[in-house]
Amino acid sequence: MEKKLAELKARLAEVEDLGHASAVLSWDQATYMPPGGAPARGRQMALLSRLAHERATDAALGHLLDDLQPYAESLPYDSDDAALIRVARRNYERDTRIPNALVGELNEHSARSYQAWTAARPANDFAAVRGNLEKTLDLSRRLADCFPGYSHIADPLIDYADEGMKAETVRALFADLRAQMVPLLRQVLDQPTPDDSCLHQNFPEDAQRAFGERVVAQLGYDFSRGRQDKTHHPFMTKFSLGDVRITTRFRPDDLSDGLFSTIHESGHAMYEQGIDPAYEATPLAHGTSAGVHESQSRLWENVVGRSRGFWQHFYPELQAAFPTQLGGVDLETFYRAVNKAMPSVIRTDADQMTYDLHVMIRFDLELAMLEGALEVADLPEAWKMRYLSDIGVCADEECDGVLQDVHWFAGVIGGSFQGYTLGNIMSAQFYSAALRAVPAIPAQIAAGEFGPLHGWLRENIYRHGSKFTANELIAHVCGGPLSIDPYVAYLRDKFA
Amino acid sequence: MEKKLAELKARLAEVEDLGHASAVLSWDQATYMPPGGAPARGRQMALLSRLAHERATDAALGHLLDDLQPYAESLPYDSDDAALIRVARRNYERDTRIPNALVGELNEHSARSYQAWTAARPANDFAAVRGNLEKTLDLSRRLADCFPGYSHIADPLIDYADEGMKAETVRALFADLRAQMVPLLRQVLDQPTPDDSCLHQNFPEDAQRAFGERVVAQLGYDFSRGRQDKTHHPFMTKFSLGDVRITTRFRPDDLSDGLFSTIHESGHAMYEQGIDPAYEATPLAHGTSAGVHESQSRLWENVVGRSRGFWQHFYPELQAAFPTQLGGVDLETFYRAVNKAMPSVIRTDADQMTYDLHVMIRFDLELAMLEGALEVADLPEAWKMRYLSDIGVCADEECDGVLQDVHWFAGVIGGSFQGYTLGNIMSAQFYSAALRAVPAIPAQIAAGEFGPLHGWLRENIYRHGSKFTANELIAHVCGGPLSIDPYVAYLRDKFA
Repeated sequence: MEKKLAELKARLAEVEDLGHASAVLSWDQATYMPPGGAPARGRQMALLSRLAHERATDAALGHLLDDLQPYAESLPYDSDDAALIRVARRNYERDTRIPNALVGELNEHSARSYQAWTAARPANDFAAVRGNLEKTLDLSRRLADCFPGYSHIADPLIDYADEGMKAETVRALFADLRAQMVPLLRQVLDQPTPDDSCLHQNFPEDAQRAFGERVVAQLGYDFSRGRQDKTHHPFMTKFSLGDVRITTRFRPDDLSDGLFSTIHESGHAMYEQGIDPAYEATPLAHGTSAGVHESQSRLWENVVGRSRGFWQHFYPELQAAFPTQLGGVDLETFYRAVNKAMPSVIRTDADQMTYDLHVMIRFDLELAMLEGALEVADLPEAWKMRYLSDIGVCADEECDGVLQDVHWFAGVIGGSFQGYTLGNIMSAQFYSAALRAVPAIPAQIAAGEFGPLHGWLRENIYRHGSKFTANELIAHVCGGPLSIDPYVAYLRDKFA
Repeated sequence: MEKKLAELKARLAEVEDLGHASAVLSWDQATYMPPGGAPARGRQMALLSRLAHERATDAALGHLLDDLQPYAESLPYDSDDAALIRVARRNYERDTRIPNALVGELNEHSARSYQAWTAARPANDFAAVRGNLEKTLDLSRRLADCFPGYSHIADPLIDYADEGMKAETVRALFADLRAQMVPLLRQVLDQPTPDDSCLHQNFPEDAQRAFGERVVAQLGYDFSRGRQDKTHHPFMTKFSLGDVRITTRFRPDDLSDGLFSTIHESGHAMYEQGIDPAYEATPLAHGTSAGVHESQSRLWENVVGRSRGFWQHFYPELQAAFPTQLGGVDLETFYRAVNKAMPSVIRTDADQMTYDLHVMIRFDLELAMLEGALEVADLPEAWKMRYLSDIGVCADEECDGVLQDVHWFAGVIGGSFQGYTLGNIMSAQFYSAALRAVPAIPAQIAAGEFGPLHGWLRENIYRHGSKFTANELIAHVCGGPLSIDPYVAYLRDKFA
């Protein structure tokens, strides 16, 4: 059995490392690759993906998992070996359900669709991508149909990103949340609008970068096992548990964009850096779901990074970094500026009070398209209507409307958005569990001590990687099921 | 036949692209990887190497080459398809001669030996690596013995880097060269020593980088298909014909180190960037040998970059970049400074008059070890004796002696050094052929017009990639065999 387990680990390590190699090529493409490198890079990444997929769906891997099943069943559910075999089997069963031809068609179509989107977005031209999107919808349905027995056609797609979540439960959860957020937002907007002009001055990039890196190093992001570079869109990527990188961008006239991006991505990265090193190069060495991952980035970005205590500690340092810009701005003004709520049309620029409304619009539209209740041709109009009814504003141009997010244009329709709001919900639920365990955390944050919170997260969430599903982790850590209550209470307490 | 040729190209592209992917990982390791990434990176690169080797030695590839042989023989020798099949067959036959077990043993030993060297070099501790080096010698001999029928045991190792070259012919060529260089060097050293203090002032790194990049862009290095980053040791690497990168380093107190490194590596890179794009992802898409590659870097670095005409054009620009440092230094003083000859102990810092003496010492010692005439234990002493007799100086410490070069500690003993001096010899031979074809080249260089020389090199050397061997290329371009005469004439003309 030991020999078979070693063979399993060796095979899984190859799958992981081909993925890691591909991630290095992708990171390079986004950071430093000269334009001439593009055609070959696509070819090279496709080769690595194909080799990884061949290995992930190798029948010999399936036999090995069958042979190891009795051993897994003899172990406690939470033992590392049992979890490894369980997660490897789940991945294997999922990957082998999808015919190779469909995988190829999806990859090829995604690449073409993404290219078309990069041209259509600046041209405000939804018509140019409509045909692609119809094909994407068709492929998404065919992908879902590889997993018969679902209650809702989106279920297999949601399950891929957020295992255990289903369309109907998420839809109900989001409806509850929206019902509480909309009146709260109205209440917030009735108050005087905070003045955030202090954030819109000239902030030289080098000083922004230096400050952001000092902040995330204090939060617990380990630069000896990571680094930060500049990209068009910020992201986190991992090449091993010893090399978890983040990227950011800087706008000279918007201090908060780069800073909160850096904190957000460092939240994702601290999660991955905190995974048990014994899981290196196994499928356990990943955050367990889109929602849990996002909970870790939003916890640091918003719950911590936009708290008054956080800025009690960091604001004097920020003022010292930008004395001419912020020397005359008091803490309270700055705190209110980074928490200004204001309906807007772009999801990634949205504040805490409106962000989830953007997400829920997309989630509902995804479901409607998959159900056949909404035609792709009618999507732009449906988008506008929902923006007007839910957020009260609506983009003048499609580049700021239905074309704003890459997700539907570079992947499938279904399962790509719910994780953002699940993450916000969980961030508050996990944070309230942390506060129950360590009530001094807010005072520690105000004193610049982030170790206790970081340590609690590492112990309770990070180190487990994918050992537990999101629902298991929430039950384990919070002592109950996923709930919007802590999140609503947090928002009400902060904004109302 | 067309279908088989397409299959051949598809198989070869996989081998190439796995190599390219590995090169990206290796570049990242040398440029930006955080320390925590090291263990996984080694594992990932080993995986990619193994997958490439499996594909390069796949029996199906051999059958395909057999099937295509009649087609190749029906074509002119210099047709692209004939060259592709010829070079692919040569690689296949070479790669399949070496047992997989020996490949594994060599890779594993090299990694271990390299690690030991990185510690032993700063510690001046030859004894710490002596055992590894003895094992390297043994493995090198076993590698050579995979190719029975050689005249000298070094022949297969030399042939690997410089196809068609043999120990005895190179030894004879080098002996001739040394016989002419040593008296010439004595003559040079009898003249007053140029004052190079102008190079040793404080030169800020950013300005060094900007100037060097402007220079190589003018020479013809295409930054839209490449870029420059900083590394401990400068190198050139290629991820596709559209992405050929260089690295350099800067010493604030030595202007010439970074500048000539940049020019040197851009020479390697312009060779690769100039290969016929139709050869992308085939074994033809590489410079043809170590010697020819080095000829292109040395041609730009030395023959062009240390010429009076070059600095007639660039020196005013350099003075403008460093007005306080060089404003008061005249062109002739600067020109003599960058051409100062002075016996020294470090190969990579050596000037044009002594560089080849360093190389020939290593070449002779390699042969002696392989022949069994020199024990590894006696290498440090032999090294010192040859330095004293050939160059007249000798390092006090082993870190500056036998431990200075990585080659024997990260690869095999044999074949790793001759290319440097072959490159110098060829650089002069190719340049004299270029001058016969375009006599105005020196005047053009002095006027800052590098296009005609770059165009001649692209047309006559670059574009062919590996289509012709070094000897074929020399015969083709220079109308005769490899000869030291142009090189000796060049050195005599410049230095005597």
